[in-house]
Amino acid sequence: MTEKDRVLAANLAFYKAFATRDLDAMAAVWASTLPVLCTHPGWMVLHGREAVLQSWRDILANEDSPTVACNAEEAVLYGHLAIVSCEEELPEAVLVATNVFAREAGEWRLVHHQAGPLAMRPSARRLS
Amino acid sequence: MTEKDRVLAANLAFYKAFATRDLDAMAAVWASTLPVLCTHPGWMVLHGREAVLQSWRDILANEDSPTVACNAEEAVLYGHLAIVSCEEELPEAVLVATNVFAREAGEWRLVHHQAGPLAMRPSARRLS
Repeated sequence: MTEKDRVLAANLAFYKAFATRDLDAMAAVWASTLPVLCTHPGWMVLHGREAVLQSWRDILANEDSPTVACNAEEAVLYGHLAIVSCEEELPEAVLVATNVFAREAGEWRLVHHQAGPLAMRPSARRLS
Repeated sequence: MTEKDRVLAANLAFYKAFATRDLDAMAAVWASTLPVLCTHPGWMVLHGREAVLQSWRDILANEDSPTVACNAEEAVLYGHLAIVSCEEELPEAVLVATNVFAREAGEWRLVHHQAGPLAMRPSARRLS
């Protein structure tokens, strides 16, 4: 398993926690000692583990929150940090996301997430 | 000047290059040896310096591209990488942006930019 594989596994753990609405798993994905920030679609940026996890508590508790699947993920490594770009497939839209991971106590943990709308669905793009 | 000040100065250099449509300055802002990626609002992610700079060439050459000003910037440092969150003030909208910088040959250079729409203008938020 390469370091890039480990980063992509951490990225998948984030989307699994999201899809299964598992707050404990979500809390474990995020860094606990390094500073974290998060920009949900349309939101202002949130700074700090408490504010970020509270936002996920609200999202995961909301029965109207959409299901999400992660596609087209690519990881770029910069030593002890890594940036993963991916697409988030929702029932009615596709978002494009940036997830930044950092090594904390030997594990890749999430320190930043930003997602925003993609103007065109990948399936539509493939037809053009 | 602290390291955080240096990161914020690099962030402002990015927005100055954007606002003045200065492609040479924009090319100097982005890392030249480290891998780079960029997600413009609504676009798929672009990977690699050539694709990223070509997108900026197109944006800066387009007379319909909006002017942009950077507000509410905050830098978070992770050793030789830093994440800057900020708002981009456009004439008709406010975007929220993530800019990731890395130290390359002793300078902070941009390795990733993602911007997406903010659902509510900060001025409207302050009135609520």
